[in-house]
Amino acid sequence: MTQTVSVTFFDPETGQELARATVPRGTTVLEAGLAAGTEITATCGRRGRCRSCRVKVLAGEIAPPTLQDTIQLGPDGVRERFRLSCQMPAVADCSIAVMPEHGELGHQILADAGSFAPGAMPLESGIEKHLIRAQAPQDENHQTSDIEQILGCLPAGISRLMPLSVYRKLPTVLREELGQLTVTTFLDQIIDVEAGDSSAQLYGMALDIGTTTVVATLHSLRSGEQLAATAAVNPQSVFGGDLMSRIAYAQFDQKKLQVLRGRILNQINGFIEALTQEAGVAPEHLYKIVIAGNTCMHHLCLGIDTSYVGLAPYAPVVRDPIVVPASEIPFKRAPNARVCFLPILAGFVGADTIAGIIATRIYESEGIRLLVDIGTNGEVVLGSKDRLLVCSAPAGPTFEGGQVKHGMRGAVGAIEKVAIGADVECDVIGEVPAIGICGSGLIDAVAKMRDAGVLDAAGRLWRPGVRPLPEALQARVVKDGSGRAFVLVHAAQGGRGEDVVLTQNDIRQLQLAKAAIYGGVLMLQRIMGVRDDQIEEVMLSGGFGNYVSIESAVSIGLLPPVPLERISYVGNAALLGAQLALLSETERARAFDIARSIEHVALATRPEFQDIFIEACALSAAPTGNQFGKAPAVRVAVKADATQHG
Amino acid sequence: MTQTVSVTFFDPETGQELARATVPRGTTVLEAGLAAGTEITATCGRRGRCRSCRVKVLAGEIAPPTLQDTIQLGPDGVRERFRLSCQMPAVADCSIAVMPEHGELGHQILADAGSFAPGAMPLESGIEKHLIRAQAPQDENHQTSDIEQILGCLPAGISRLMPLSVYRKLPTVLREELGQLTVTTFLDQIIDVEAGDSSAQLYGMALDIGTTTVVATLHSLRSGEQLAATAAVNPQSVFGGDLMSRIAYAQFDQKKLQVLRGRILNQINGFIEALTQEAGVAPEHLYKIVIAGNTCMHHLCLGIDTSYVGLAPYAPVVRDPIVVPASEIPFKRAPNARVCFLPILAGFVGADTIAGIIATRIYESEGIRLLVDIGTNGEVVLGSKDRLLVCSAPAGPTFEGGQVKHGMRGAVGAIEKVAIGADVECDVIGEVPAIGICGSGLIDAVAKMRDAGVLDAAGRLWRPGVRPLPEALQARVVKDGSGRAFVLVHAAQGGRGEDVVLTQNDIRQLQLAKAAIYGGVLMLQRIMGVRDDQIEEVMLSGGFGNYVSIESAVSIGLLPPVPLERISYVGNAALLGAQLALLSETERARAFDIARSIEHVALATRPEFQDIFIEACALSAAPTGNQFGKAPAVRVAVKADATQHG
Repeated sequence: MTQTVSVTFFDPETGQELARATVPRGTTVLEAGLAAGTEITATCGRRGRCRSCRVKVLAGEIAPPTLQDTIQLGPDGVRERFRLSCQMPAVADCSIAVMPEHGELGHQILADAGSFAPGAMPLESGIEKHLIRAQAPQDENHQTSDIEQILGCLPAGISRLMPLSVYRKLPTVLREELGQLTVTTFLDQIIDVEAGDSSAQLYGMALDIGTTTVVATLHSLRSGEQLAATAAVNPQSVFGGDLMSRIAYAQFDQKKLQVLRGRILNQINGFIEALTQEAGVAPEHLYKIVIAGNTCMHHLCLGIDTSYVGLAPYAPVVRDPIVVPASEIPFKRAPNARVCFLPILAGFVGADTIAGIIATRIYESEGIRLLVDIGTNGEVVLGSKDRLLVCSAPAGPTFEGGQVKHGMRGAVGAIEKVAIGADVECDVIGEVPAIGICGSGLIDAVAKMRDAGVLDAAGRLWRPGVRPLPEALQARVVKDGSGRAFVLVHAAQGGRGEDVVLTQNDIRQLQLAKAAIYGGVLMLQRIMGVRDDQIEEVMLSGGFGNYVSIESAVSIGLLPPVPLERISYVGNAALLGAQLALLSETERARAFDIARSIEHVALATRPEFQDIFIEACALSAAPTGNQFGKAPAVRVAVKADATQHG
Repeated sequence: MTQTVSVTFFDPETGQELARATVPRGTTVLEAGLAAGTEITATCGRRGRCRSCRVKVLAGEIAPPTLQDTIQLGPDGVRERFRLSCQMPAVADCSIAVMPEHGELGHQILADAGSFAPGAMPLESGIEKHLIRAQAPQDENHQTSDIEQILGCLPAGISRLMPLSVYRKLPTVLREELGQLTVTTFLDQIIDVEAGDSSAQLYGMALDIGTTTVVATLHSLRSGEQLAATAAVNPQSVFGGDLMSRIAYAQFDQKKLQVLRGRILNQINGFIEALTQEAGVAPEHLYKIVIAGNTCMHHLCLGIDTSYVGLAPYAPVVRDPIVVPASEIPFKRAPNARVCFLPILAGFVGADTIAGIIATRIYESEGIRLLVDIGTNGEVVLGSKDRLLVCSAPAGPTFEGGQVKHGMRGAVGAIEKVAIGADVECDVIGEVPAIGICGSGLIDAVAKMRDAGVLDAAGRLWRPGVRPLPEALQARVVKDGSGRAFVLVHAAQGGRGEDVVLTQNDIRQLQLAKAAIYGGVLMLQRIMGVRDDQIEEVMLSGGFGNYVSIESAVSIGLLPPVPLERISYVGNAALLGAQLALLSETERARAFDIARSIEHVALATRPEFQDIFIEACALSAAPTGNQFGKAPAVRVAVKADATQHG
């Protein structure tokens, strides 16, 4: 693995190279620029709260946009490859245009509402704090009440009705600090009252509850700034790595449902505690929590039975956006928060997908774009501002190392990259002896094996006589039980005490998994009548997309055969979507609009999907042009089981 | 006490006497009529669900209207002395006009909405049950959700948002009875879903939470019929008989507040359990609970600190009508109910008073009417459709036997009536030897003692030489510590082993208590400019009003000097108001209108009240005409302490 990267800085006016730095991988572009002696200003102190350090990525790998990029530079800026250099890690060699100072604009801090530069995203989380000075009732004749005294000091349009907790706190709060108090509202509802001035303290949290991983970030609702972040494996994993096995575990069994539910609630309560502590924020000042999660996680969080989500037609109980007090869920650690669940589209197209659409703004795209979340429960979104299609593409656990003989997660000891010349060379995470292979390694290995002739396009391992193969490679094709396998790392070089191999069956599993994803892509292309060359951009989201070799993914036909520069990794789009909905009620409302207008395609119900799936199993980039109606070039002996969800 | 009463029936057309019956006191007028051989029909089986048995009370004591009277005969019918004979107990001799059958109208059962006869009150509790047949989602492509399938079968205008409990129940409920299910709504909100047809099962509860007594009734929300009723002493009484001592007990002490709160919540939960069990109603089918209570009970029920309700200016925390799910309070025994708290006017004019105004309909009265709730925390309402005034009249515990040497509640052994001729004769509750005297007995005793010359108008006990007095009475005036006392029952005849006496101090206490009430009446009369003879009706409400001798109350100047036939006992008006709001959202909305429009008079803040209070202490009916500005005729040596609340 490359340990240093080279970052070259240019003047955008003259095109002249200004400086060049070789820095450790992961260094921010700002630090690299400062090391190289360029003059990038960082007015806000590298917190992503201003636009003074912005750059344009001219060439090389561009980091997925963060929430700070989106807030400061706006969705258009981000699409035009602008980034905040203080937020962007250099993960590969790249060319960077240093932008001139904005003058006044560079100093605009987002906390001051109304002063955003064009292109920046306005913050309107719906949470407001009103610092007022109210008097306790004084006149016995003209009686009033504590609540009325407060309402009289607030802007019009605030509801008279409020949670019992506010009534319960009010008498003391109103009389504690000589009537100075802070009233917190969410939209038109009072949700909290506090004695004294706490008007600067308003925070929110965005959560992406994935089947495998749960990620949370804590934000200031005044500036949007991310104050803390955390991620952990979903603790339900002990009951099954994929959704279907968890649904099956708890199906028609309320007790087990409560076990699953308890695990995720405990984790989120722990996250709330950890993040607020890390950021030095009082949990009482956490007012809004936005949750993006698939349908199963959404329902489990809310305590809704998932039994029927696991049975055709996999219908959710509710799809509408839900807002509930945290105490009702309960998230006990956030006593005053309102929890906003983003809407759901279908049983296997959940709020995470909707959030991803929000984040990537496909819905306003002029040209056709494709969003692919490669994972156990993959989703594919295709379209533009004119029409959006979505399908669930259940790849199964192969990409996470499941059902693969020496498969493992992307952890230390996993082969993540393979090169095949005269012989095989493997990159191993942590640069230790290999003990197995992870999903991205598997894709890379299969691509390289096919290129080297170890595999044919149908996925069959080399056998003597079919075609020539370097001897070193021939020697790596070995017997494995009743079938054959390819040795990636010999026992002597590896760390598991035996050869690290890919079996014929492993390769079949990968074909099935990638066919589920690519079959979904093809299906949507056909329904919409989109040729490969009409796809202007392919966006990979989800944790897996970050590690996969895009070249190899195209090469084995996991992604459509478009020029590689049109394919990029957009990060955890579900989390970014949740963050946007946290900071902007407009974005949260948009989620509902999208959920209502997008078209859902259930692959399993389409008779033509059987053929498409078999076509998608081939280990080759689809023929350019994607000629509809043409018989698939290669047939493979795999059973299409597209109804598998998990 | 009279054990039998005579009921005479007349033909309203001819005025001819039809029949006469002598029946045990408390027999219903219907039973008396049937015993006498009249032909009163009772179509609904004496359940108060039709109007066929209605009668008009021509003369004699008329029972306070029940909810059934109000529903079937309408407020106007009730005011015109119509009653359902199946609901009205004969408590004294009376003359009754038997009304002819209505024909068709007599058979109209209220359950059938829209078919009410003119005058009857429409039932519109806001609770509706919708029996629907819905299909679980079937189509995997065009995804929908359980909720959407349900909403598609319901009338338009029902909110998409519902409590989590509904989402949690729905998947099972939708698939249990072949899609037949019953959806319960309160206004536009779905509050419950059940498998199968439970559309006939909808019930509600009305509660009057008094300082002394808590009363609850269970009703069918389809017919209004009262299915069960219960009452008990407020279990907070161990912490003080009056409100102020309870507020003081818990003032600035959250733990003690929770103790008070726990007691009343336990009691109400017990009531819910007992009433639903008695009526054979599933607690899940209790959907609406309306609570009328004074401000302190209202706040305690909701868990709101009452500390400041006990300090001038006695302001409530909230006055608006509040609706919360029973689970939030919590009333655990009514999992699906919405609890509606009637609005409050002031710290000492609570939802019970508003409910009383609803029940007695003073707000639509052409002439001036007066509503008096005699009790520890008395209230006085004066006015008509043009203007309404209200004040709190804190009488203290005297009427409940408190601060009186041999005072006691109206229980067995209490003197409740006194006659004084040559000597004293006492009626004792339960006809046992007397052990003490209750509030109504105290009023009667003082009235008769003044008439007999044992007391003068200033409340001073007879002393030798001031005026002649029969010897037997002279002998009853005895020394009592440093003062004097009047023996009502000699030790030999009584049941307490010593004389049952009224001390000079007892009489002073009564004067203070009655001056608090009557001073309030006078104050409101003066503010509104109403002479005694302009008061068309005096209505006594509350438990105490049922037992007090109206004649004696006027005689000692507890009530204004109006002709006795203008004064009547209207029963527990707070409970009746709660029942009306239970069965009619119009009435519940009206409560808020009244709370916003009625004028509150804080007696303690009025400089002129000092004089009025002293005037009101006199033991004599106020001079007819109530000449404003005239100096009070009699002065008594008592300290006016009108700020005492309790």
